Amino acid sequence: MNHEEPFSGLLTEPSTVVTAGVELFERTLAAQGVDHHRVDWRPPDDGTAAAIARISADPRTVAANEEAVSRLTSAEPRWTDVVTASEAVGIERGQFLHAGPPLTWERASGPMRGALIGAMLYEGMAGTPEEAADIAARGGIELSPCHEHGAVGPMAGVVAPSMPMFRVENAAFGNTAYCSLNEGLGKVLRYGAFGPEVIERLQWMRDVLGPAMRAAVRALDGMDLRALITQALQMGDELHNRNRAASALFVREVVPPLLEAELDPRQLAEVVRFINGNEHFFLNLVMPAAKAAADPARDLPGSTMVVAVARNGTDFGIQVSGTGDRWFTAPAEVPDGLFLGGYTVEDANPDIGDSTITETAGLGGFAMAAAPAIVRFIGGEVGQALAATRSMYQITLAEHPVYQVPILEFRGTPVGIDVTKVVRTGLVPVVNTGIAGREAGTGQVGAGLVTPPMAVFSAAVRALADDAGA
Amino acid sequence: MNHEEPFSGLLTEPSTVVTAGVELFERTLAAQGVDHHRVDWRPPDDGTAAAIARISADPRTVAANEEAVSRLTSAEPRWTDVVTASEAVGIERGQFLHAGPPLTWERASGPMRGALIGAMLYEGMAGTPEEAADIAARGGIELSPCHEHGAVGPMAGVVAPSMPMFRVENAAFGNTAYCSLNEGLGKVLRYGAFGPEVIERLQWMRDVLGPAMRAAVRALDGMDLRALITQALQMGDELHNRNRAASALFVREVVPPLLEAELDPRQLAEVVRFINGNEHFFLNLVMPAAKAAADPARDLPGSTMVVAVARNGTDFGIQVSGTGDRWFTAPAEVPDGLFLGGYTVEDANPDIGDSTITETAGLGGFAMAAAPAIVRFIGGEVGQALAATRSMYQITLAEHPVYQVPILEFRGTPVGIDVTKVVRTGLVPVVNTGIAGREAGTGQVGAGLVTPPMAVFSAAVRALADDAGA
Repeated sequence: MNHEEPFSGLLTEPSTVVTAGVELFERTLAAQGVDHHRVDWRPPDDGTAAAIARISADPRTVAANEEAVSRLTSAEPRWTDVVTASEAVGIERGQFLHAGPPLTWERASGPMRGALIGAMLYEGMAGTPEEAADIAARGGIELSPCHEHGAVGPMAGVVAPSMPMFRVENAAFGNTAYCSLNEGLGKVLRYGAFGPEVIERLQWMRDVLGPAMRAAVRALDGMDLRALITQALQMGDELHNRNRAASALFVREVVPPLLEAELDPRQLAEVVRFINGNEHFFLNLVMPAAKAAADPARDLPGSTMVVAVARNGTDFGIQVSGTGDRWFTAPAEVPDGLFLGGYTVEDANPDIGDSTITETAGLGGFAMAAAPAIVRFIGGEVGQALAATRSMYQITLAEHPVYQVPILEFRGTPVGIDVTKVVRTGLVPVVNTGIAGREAGTGQVGAGLVTPPMAVFSAAVRALADDAGA
Repeated sequence: MNHEEPFSGLLTEPSTVVTAGVELFERTLAAQGVDHHRVDWRPPDDGTAAAIARISADPRTVAANEEAVSRLTSAEPRWTDVVTASEAVGIERGQFLHAGPPLTWERASGPMRGALIGAMLYEGMAGTPEEAADIAARGGIELSPCHEHGAVGPMAGVVAPSMPMFRVENAAFGNTAYCSLNEGLGKVLRYGAFGPEVIERLQWMRDVLGPAMRAAVRALDGMDLRALITQALQMGDELHNRNRAASALFVREVVPPLLEAELDPRQLAEVVRFINGNEHFFLNLVMPAAKAAADPARDLPGSTMVVAVARNGTDFGIQVSGTGDRWFTAPAEVPDGLFLGGYTVEDANPDIGDSTITETAGLGGFAMAAAPAIVRFIGGEVGQALAATRSMYQITLAEHPVYQVPILEFRGTPVGIDVTKVVRTGLVPVVNTGIAGREAGTGQVGAGLVTPPMAVFSAAVRALADDAGA
């Protein structure tokens, strides 16, 4: 990954030479025994240099980007309620949301199909996985991206009408975002598993966990997610693949109101044990917090800022403020990292999930310097975690005024991905991710980093240039 | 503080020159415009050079130190129970424990007297603070250091017979250690406050908090403190002045058994709110964990390793493995750092408390690199937090096999202070500490770092040399 190279010597003292492009430079240094790093940089794709020049000449761009990143970073996300998906986003029996850009059953990957099968079993639309697959293949279900309903979903991101969802409000702009509740790791719906234990867990989440969370948040009169995320960044989380501190702080906050809500103590103990056993629980609140922050930055003519990064297991897609609801897509890559048990990269599905909304909002891979211990979960060296964050300043519009990285002397995280900077530097966003098994029903096989396809950024740049020239 | 100088440029690239001793070197560099740092290093105190030579020739020292640090780092501290102080350490009405080396009422500082007055009011030995002070001045109470009873106490460290205490067992060696429960910050007994709210809180801790904690730990069948400390080091705590993550993880663990213990839910909510409101709650478990780890390393003839660092608000004292229960003391210094509200260093009492047992065991100031955000609480720059840990490798015997610092590529914390290395390098241990007001009744006025007096290490070195020569 080219983003790791420029700063890999950060914590060690000796300076080094970085070479890019023409190989002669590198060979000469090598011949002289000089310590050096070759950076995997290439000139921008065909046509993008001219496109960037046209965007640069667009009189709207600077102000539009200032407005976009200002809206993104001045968000005040609050968790305010738990409601069913049908209440939240108006889906009805037979309708399901999914992660990433628009998708059909025919093009859906193994884990996406597995999650849809599981959701149909959970909704009682089919008695067996085979029956569910038949119904889906015959066009018996209606699919729609979470992002088109003010929602986000991790991994397959499949949302069924009766599922409970967190409601998050952006107090600064009055908009809302929704996300389902986190099921834990391993064999879970969002990783494409649909066995009986998956369905039973979803039923328990609907009947016990969801109502408990609703009681807690109503008694709390909302929870300030920005404040909690800010604290967690000082406690070793990057809020995408590491939510250990945030989840612990979350439990701490919800327990007193849960105790006073007079729920059954045994069920309450179950709820707390369930959340305690799942260090990613808070991810499903970070995601709608990031979505609620990014949405007000949409639809600003001339802005080159990314407002959504999302994958459906087949396509990797982005949306950009200046180009409205249009998706720029390319085939999703297979992530690499650390694999569970006997799994290898051969078992991995291409990249999947809306959780890249965290990177969109200056968290996740962009905040990895705050979470050096994450390398034990996704692989790599601590220096790479620092390097990841530092390199992202090159492709972003601002430093987050609230989300800060202690080890970088409390510098704000890099935030507001600018597609022209991505294309110009050749640096793509650093994305932390979970890794789903490619076969439907497998579940999670690992966690790691994935390289977004440059093509989506090039396509966005060309579209923005067309618009600038119009 | 001289420990900050050698590494103050850690995160920035340019190299620099460090000068020590003779000023001519520094003047020459300055005249040439060379970037340099003067280190406040002086040759060892009179007599210690010869003493160190004698210790070096002692055939017991190397093996004794290996054994000492091996015992210290192989501890397996578990929280196993909550009992009253009279059950734990056998004190009875009129007897009180205190922090640091032995002390009399006559020599006690303001906060120590304040805490003793409060403890007498709490025990019903006096009706007013004046009456309590009179009784104490007339010799009506009996004082004894916590450390002499297998216990430790933060700040004034005053323990009264009816107070609840955490019991910690070292599963590797079978020994135990005790510590009182943490009251929170501000106007609290351990900082020398004794107003009605202090006494009422202590009564609530005795009647509600203590029994709840006892029920939790018994239902849990003990809590693995080593595992929890290890996790907290990966979450931005150094476990002395920053216990935010550890306290959150602690709450998370105790809530399910508390729920199943069928306590009154309202009282339970009070208990959880109390712990949630006090990010230092876990310190009072770290301290006995460290004490339980250090005690098996005592009394190894020839060992130059420190087994206790403690202050009583008047004297700073250490105990060394090779010299048994002897205290080496010198006047305690006044800490410097960040002060609360309108307080200044003028309001600060000299250094106080047994919490330096954390540094003795490789935590606290020695683990500051794990807790860059602590500089917002105690002052200074992030680079200094990294530098503090790195400099401590110079005066310690080992790197902790379990307690690791992610940002230093998971290097073990420096552990096992060697008095000969302290004297030889001129580097004294880095100590994080709370700061008590000097007037009895004030409470906490700040938090910061304190410089231990070199005289205690020199005195220990001379005593070890006498023993080596015997």
